[in-house]
This record gives sequence, structure tokens and C-alpha cells, in this order.
Amino acid sequence: MPKVTIAQHILASNETIAGEIQQSLVAQGIRALNIMSSPGAGKTTLLERTIERLRGELGIAVIEGDVETTADAERIEAVGAETVQINTRGACHLEAHMIRDALAEIELARVNLLIIENIGNLVCPAAWNLGEDMRVVVVSTTEGDDKPAKYPQMFAASQVMIVNKLDLLPYVDYNMEKVKRQALAINPHLRIFELSCRTGEGLDAWCAWLTDFAYHRL
Amino acid sequence: MPKVTIAQHILASNETIAGEIQQSLVAQGIRALNIMSSPGAGKTTLLERTIERLRGELGIAVIEGDVETTADAERIEAVGAETVQINTRGACHLEAHMIRDALAEIELARVNLLIIENIGNLVCPAAWNLGEDMRVVVVSTTEGDDKPAKYPQMFAASQVMIVNKLDLLPYVDYNMEKVKRQALAINPHLRIFELSCRTGEGLDAWCAWLTDFAYHRL
Repeated sequence: MPKVTIAQHILASNETIAGEIQQSLVAQGIRALNIMSSPGAGKTTLLERTIERLRGELGIAVIEGDVETTADAERIEAVGAETVQINTRGACHLEAHMIRDALAEIELARVNLLIIENIGNLVCPAAWNLGEDMRVVVVSTTEGDDKPAKYPQMFAASQVMIVNKLDLLPYVDYNMEKVKRQALAINPHLRIFELSCRTGEGLDAWCAWLTDFAYHRL
Repeated sequence: MPKVTIAQHILASNETIAGEIQQSLVAQGIRALNIMSSPGAGKTTLLERTIERLRGELGIAVIEGDVETTADAERIEAVGAETVQINTRGACHLEAHMIRDALAEIELARVNLLIIENIGNLVCPAAWNLGEDMRVVVVSTTEGDDKPAKYPQMFAASQVMIVNKLDLLPYVDYNMEKVKRQALAINPHLRIFELSCRTGEGLDAWCAWLTDFAYHRL
């Protein structure tokens, strides 16, 4: 199958560039997160609430991945973080060469935390290393409680799972314990946060963890 | 770029198989729907509620696409439709050859409506013709009201848009008119249904339309 051979070649080249990005970020003391989820799980809103809380304390830069539009980059800039938008024009995930090009646009001297918001997609982004230190998968209580079992690669590839939209829990059938059990069966080391970007519940714990991460305390 | 050449080759081969599937279904008087959405927008629940209402009237068969698990096929079989599960084991969309193989497992003589539930993904499935007569994209009120603008290919490629989870509208910031305006700007011919699988609101109109579709009345 030529498709597989070439896909592996492209993945190998992606790994090389991702390795270079990681080395460069480590040398500059910058830590990097890659945030992934389904469309509409709340990644951008999570970043807005997170940056509002941490912008006085951390130098945060954001790379926004979307198939189309600059709407998310505009939202993130409005809360005060330097942002570069990548539009993939049809592609379903970010690749390391896109991150390398985006990093060239950022004044890195003032940055100690780089956040990459990937394309809304629970399948493809899991396979693509972007040079990040940590991968975060966001799920929400309105998506159904079967997502870890149905998209296991994403949960195996992540170090952190955030369950968002806690405020909607009373109105949906969502078994939180089942989700956590499924996710931990796939990846026993997963760190789990439950929160609501709407009410603010759970944001303190997430932001405290993120600050520790940014300052190399974990 | 060899990747593009080969991807086009694979897409061309997919078109050939999709054309054969469509011819075969037409010859047997079977109409086919391809249902697509983000993970967790409610495709499977929509099929459960739809099949419960129409199973006495129509011969319905379902092909269930998932990256992993047979959970959705089990849910659909439980409401009484013949179901074949496809597990793509990592692939982010269904392809026509998978549908051809699944159709070989179904007793088509009793079927007049074939429903294909695609992988939960708002990007990749839009590019792959499965031999269907009609494409339906499902969005939900908890996903944010920017999805048509951010994933335009999916809305351009569909003939029907269903907005699900109407019951959660009071608890979220979702501008229904904005979503419809965005979607119709991309695709002015889109037929739109608003419904709640939880309360049943809007299901009558959708099921009446689907019955007309199955009986070649539209």
C-alpha cells in the first residue's frame, strides 16, 4: 500500500521537525501544551478563562489551529495573549511544520507557556507530535459518556483529561465515573480535572496545576 | 507532492466504488443516507428515536461506523434494525469499499432505507462519497454556534442539517439564527430541522421528511 508508506514517511518527517521544536523550546525555557478535543467541547473558552486568570503571572502565547476563520485567535487576543492563527483549509490536524512557521511569528523572549489549540477532532490530531511537553484532551458532559472507549488513541496519547461543562450535568445523562474509569483503563497515568468554564467551578485547580507545569515544578 | 497525487488516486478509486454502490442501490429501490457530525452530537440517539417511530413503516438497515467498539451497533439492533458495525481502527472516516463489504452482510430484499452513521468527525468524512443519495450533518446546541463557519466543507457537502439538543438551549449561549444564517450562506439549499431526541420535539417533521425520502417522494 503506497499510501501507508508515504504516510509513514510524512509522520517520520513530522517527528524530526517536532524534535527540533521541542529542543528549541527547552533551550528557551518554554513549556508547551497541545490541547485537543471534539469540535465544541470548549477549548477556546477554557483558554479564555485560563488566560484571564494567569496573564499577570505567566507569559502566555497561543497558536490557534482551525480549518477556517480567525474567530478563535480574535477571542484569545481579546483576553491579552499573543496569538498566531493557523488555518489548515481542510486539513483535520496540525503538523509540526505549521508550528515551526507559527513560532517564527511570536516574540518568544517574553513567553514561558506556549499553548497550541489543535483542530476540533477526536481522531487525527492524536497521531501528530507537535514538539509539545504535554497533551491535554478536553471532553464535555454533553458529548455522551462513551468517548474514551470510542476514541481510545486520543486518551492513550494524552497526559491530562479535562471534563468540561460540569454546569450542564443536571440536564444530561452522563456517568462521570464511567468516563473516568474508561479513560484510566486506557491510560492509568491520566491526570483528570473536572470543571465548568461557565461557572468557574474547578478552574482554580486546573490553573494551579498549569502554573506548576509552566514553572517546571512538575 | 506525492502525498496529494496518491490521495487523489485513492479518492478517485473511492468515487468508482461509490458509483457502483449507488447504481446497485438504485436498481434495488433502496435509498441511502450518510449521517455525519462531531463526536457526541447525538447521531446514534437520533437513529434510535427515528427507528422506533418508523420501523413498522419502513425496512431500515444501518451501517455503523466507529473507530472502535460495537456499542452503537448494539444500541441500534436493540431498537430493531438490522445493523452492521464497521470498526476503522484509527481511521477518521468511512470509505466506499467499507460500505461495499458491509452491504454484502445485509439482507437487502427487505430494506428500502439504508442509513450510514459515519465516524464522529466534522472534517474528514465530508470528502468521501459512500454512494449515498443524501448527506445529513447533525450539530447540537451545546457545541457552540460557530460550527458552520469553522467547518464549511461539511455544510457545503450536505443536503440536510439537523440541530439537535433543543432541550438544552435554555442553559447554553447558542444563537440559532446565527447558525442557520452561517449554514445557508455556505449552502443555500440546505434543508434544516431543529429537534430534541430527549423530549421528542421536532421528531415528527424529521420522520415525515425521512419517510417521503425513503418512498422517493422527494
